Amino acid sequence: MAEPASAYLQLEENCARLSAISGAVATLHWDSAVIMPQGGNEARAEQLATLGVISHEILTRPEMGALLDEAEARGDTLDSWQRANLREMRNRWRHATAVSPDLVAAHSRATSRCEMIWRTARLENDFAALRPSLEDVVTLTREIAAAKSAAFGIAPYDALLDEYEPGCRTSVIDPLFTELEGFLPDFLQAALERQKAAPPVLRPEGPFDLLVQKDLGLTFMTALGFDFEHGRLDVSHHPFTGGIPDDVRLTTRYESDDFTQSLMGTLHETGHALYEQGLPKRWRSQPVGLARGMALHESQSLLIEMQLSRSADFLSFALPKIRAAFGGSGPAWETDNILRLYQKVEPGFIRVDADEVTYPLHVILRYRLETAMLSGDLPVADLPAAWNSGMRQALGLTPPSDRLGCLQDIHWPGGAIGYFPTYTLGALAAAQIFAAAGRALVDLPAQVRRGEFAPLLAWLRENIHAHGSCRSTDEILHAATGAPLGVAAFKAHLRARYL
Amino acid sequence: MAEPASAYLQLEENCARLSAISGAVATLHWDSAVIMPQGGNEARAEQLATLGVISHEILTRPEMGALLDEAEARGDTLDSWQRANLREMRNRWRHATAVSPDLVAAHSRATSRCEMIWRTARLENDFAALRPSLEDVVTLTREIAAAKSAAFGIAPYDALLDEYEPGCRTSVIDPLFTELEGFLPDFLQAALERQKAAPPVLRPEGPFDLLVQKDLGLTFMTALGFDFEHGRLDVSHHPFTGGIPDDVRLTTRYESDDFTQSLMGTLHETGHALYEQGLPKRWRSQPVGLARGMALHESQSLLIEMQLSRSADFLSFALPKIRAAFGGSGPAWETDNILRLYQKVEPGFIRVDADEVTYPLHVILRYRLETAMLSGDLPVADLPAAWNSGMRQALGLTPPSDRLGCLQDIHWPGGAIGYFPTYTLGALAAAQIFAAAGRALVDLPAQVRRGEFAPLLAWLRENIHAHGSCRSTDEILHAATGAPLGVAAFKAHLRARYL
Repeated sequence: MAEPASAYLQLEENCARLSAISGAVATLHWDSAVIMPQGGNEARAEQLATLGVISHEILTRPEMGALLDEAEARGDTLDSWQRANLREMRNRWRHATAVSPDLVAAHSRATSRCEMIWRTARLENDFAALRPSLEDVVTLTREIAAAKSAAFGIAPYDALLDEYEPGCRTSVIDPLFTELEGFLPDFLQAALERQKAAPPVLRPEGPFDLLVQKDLGLTFMTALGFDFEHGRLDVSHHPFTGGIPDDVRLTTRYESDDFTQSLMGTLHETGHALYEQGLPKRWRSQPVGLARGMALHESQSLLIEMQLSRSADFLSFALPKIRAAFGGSGPAWETDNILRLYQKVEPGFIRVDADEVTYPLHVILRYRLETAMLSGDLPVADLPAAWNSGMRQALGLTPPSDRLGCLQDIHWPGGAIGYFPTYTLGALAAAQIFAAAGRALVDLPAQVRRGEFAPLLAWLRENIHAHGSCRSTDEILHAATGAPLGVAAFKAHLRARYL
Repeated sequence: MAEPASAYLQLEENCARLSAISGAVATLHWDSAVIMPQGGNEARAEQLATLGVISHEILTRPEMGALLDEAEARGDTLDSWQRANLREMRNRWRHATAVSPDLVAAHSRATSRCEMIWRTARLENDFAALRPSLEDVVTLTREIAAAKSAAFGIAPYDALLDEYEPGCRTSVIDPLFTELEGFLPDFLQAALERQKAAPPVLRPEGPFDLLVQKDLGLTFMTALGFDFEHGRLDVSHHPFTGGIPDDVRLTTRYESDDFTQSLMGTLHETGHALYEQGLPKRWRSQPVGLARGMALHESQSLLIEMQLSRSADFLSFALPKIRAAFGGSGPAWETDNILRLYQKVEPGFIRVDADEVTYPLHVILRYRLETAMLSGDLPVADLPAAWNSGMRQALGLTPPSDRLGCLQDIHWPGGAIGYFPTYTLGALAAAQIFAAAGRALVDLPAQVRRGEFAPLLAWLRENIHAHGSCRSTDEILHAATGAPLGVAAFKAHLRARYL
């Protein structure tokens, strides 16, 4: 094969520079959440804004379009990874150039302002205080969606979705969500009935030493294959996985009266982290080396948390260690009780606290509402009423306050319309991928009970992580599971676990 | 006054961008030293290199020279801070443009390589392994010095010195160092004689809990006025003060069998940190808002450590707290003994472990050697012999190995020729400034004994910190102490403390 055309090599160089900047940005974001004293806020915002502007300038330089054209015209000089890399470059460039810099700046200012107002408005349960700035954000997000819609020739909501899950469209989501809406309400009732018949769930009594909780988290991260040469575990108010693949910064939070949440939180983030650490090393500085999208990312965290760690097999490995760490004994510490605790189903107001049965209903509600806000069918002023009526319909609950209702999530104030569906797409994918792994690794349940996770990780590395963004989510899922994304594996998983 | 010319405002905007980038770089450097797992090294180096290149590109854009010319031509529209800011911009720009980008890149590669080799060569006491790469560094540093010498019309060594201590010249340093060389050897003998007559120094016996050591550090930092809303204390292998004025990241290290070093280390860095936190808020993003230079910076750390914290007054405030923290009692914990411990004079091989009497002799030796290497009078191959003969002359000691000799410091492998003198200029300035503060605050000794540091800090803020880089070091010293930098106050301080 000939040398890649110089246009392509120049693009790779630009992308390496963008990757170095975004790696710096990721570290600074982590630092803001974990380390930084309050007084550093303003200067940090300035640093992040400046690096954002510089990245945008590099990506939208006048010569970039011509370089992309030229490199595409010489696609015959490229191998398949390079071609995929070029496709990803083009996609980034399209997103960056579809919107005028003024609109990007206005949107960024509006979301920063709205997020700040949201923090207070949520605490004070004051939707009226949020409304004007949220209207600004929705208006500007609609302008962005319209601009991208025109540039890409796809629907406005699809154009937003494409940022978080490239290639995904409402035409893919709608049938999946409709099927879930048909299935989940009855299933939920059946699961609740069955739960009622079981013994009541007991909560182990604390206090639980925070350092012991951390050590336990580290133990399970190590067992699962997290590489501490290339990452850390720290504490932040909202758990997240940040950093870069070579240095994954995972955070969790601890409560002294309950170890169960923080442990599953750590395991959830470990799923994200293993994906990042498994991305192809050769392509770390290029778009094709990045994680495929938010749905696949969430599939990896939910696979580790929901499919694996809340299973009876995993708990039979983990519980002896947990009991030993806290010196726990008595009925609350028995395996069956802890299993019931970790598999408890309970309709509630808050998405992030939801179990895996009710979670998709939270997401589908938000999806309906955000598509309606984007199309203009739902004015922001009517959001609280629409939210509450949706919650009644989906879960039979009426939020007693907007704080427990439409003020709970940061996504919309942050301008992230089009993000929510990826949580549930990820849950579906997690079930489908874990089922495929179970077919490939016939000994998997016994391995899990013995705490041997290397075969599972190796399978995920090969079938999911190592592809980076070389293939589409669809192609990756197809190759790994033999089918496009569907609801069947998720339903089978729920039936097996809850009925 | 008219609006500042738009050229000046454009320059301010560029500088704000450079400041945001250098703030990001400072945080990433801190992260590398304190937080980062080993495996993040390569990606971090790439991030820092990229941000360095971007900064250099911004600073050396073709239009910058014209903007500077234009803004200077319209100096009448600027107030005194803006004019000083413009002067600092010009100085930065001169340093950045005097050297070809190729030479900058070659120097940066050579120093990275040499620093890496140095780490092993020092451990293995192998000067021969270091020599070739150190020769490269010296050769390239000479080329830089020659280029800057030609551009600025000053001597090559002065051109390097100017990076670390703007405006400083060997013509200022030479008479000061000559005077010190005349004074210190006899003084040292006298101090050692007097020490011999005193009771032997006892070391408090550990172990000393690391968290207690940290708490003590935090207590004294708070007492001295460190603002924890805008900074932190952490641990690193080599203590340093990093971050930015709004978020000062100070580090120290603890040893469980000796609290005395880490405590003084923390106080030393606190002096640096107080300077940073006291820089003018209005000018935080501009060159004129930066600390004046390395000599004044070192003067602030040595003022807090050497002048203040190792004094009998400070220890009479601090010792009861230290004793209480560790539950210390007995002869080793008596005030007189701890004072003797903190004021012990002892010729040794290692600069960073040296007391304030012998420290300047270490520095002067390095100054003589680095000026000779730069002029070509001293080939790198002859460095070990020249070092050892210099040590014999200065301190009567022959290093038993290069590890305890010319391999001990990272400065030359890092290309930092011209840096060493600032340590001793800082020590002289510290004595002179502390004496002036003592004249201005007649109650100072009693305040120190009571742990009241606010008056001293206020005086330093007003007379040193608040000037940023608006005035020269000389002007600041003159205004604060009534005299140019001299040796008199340092000599008086040594006589009062050690004879």
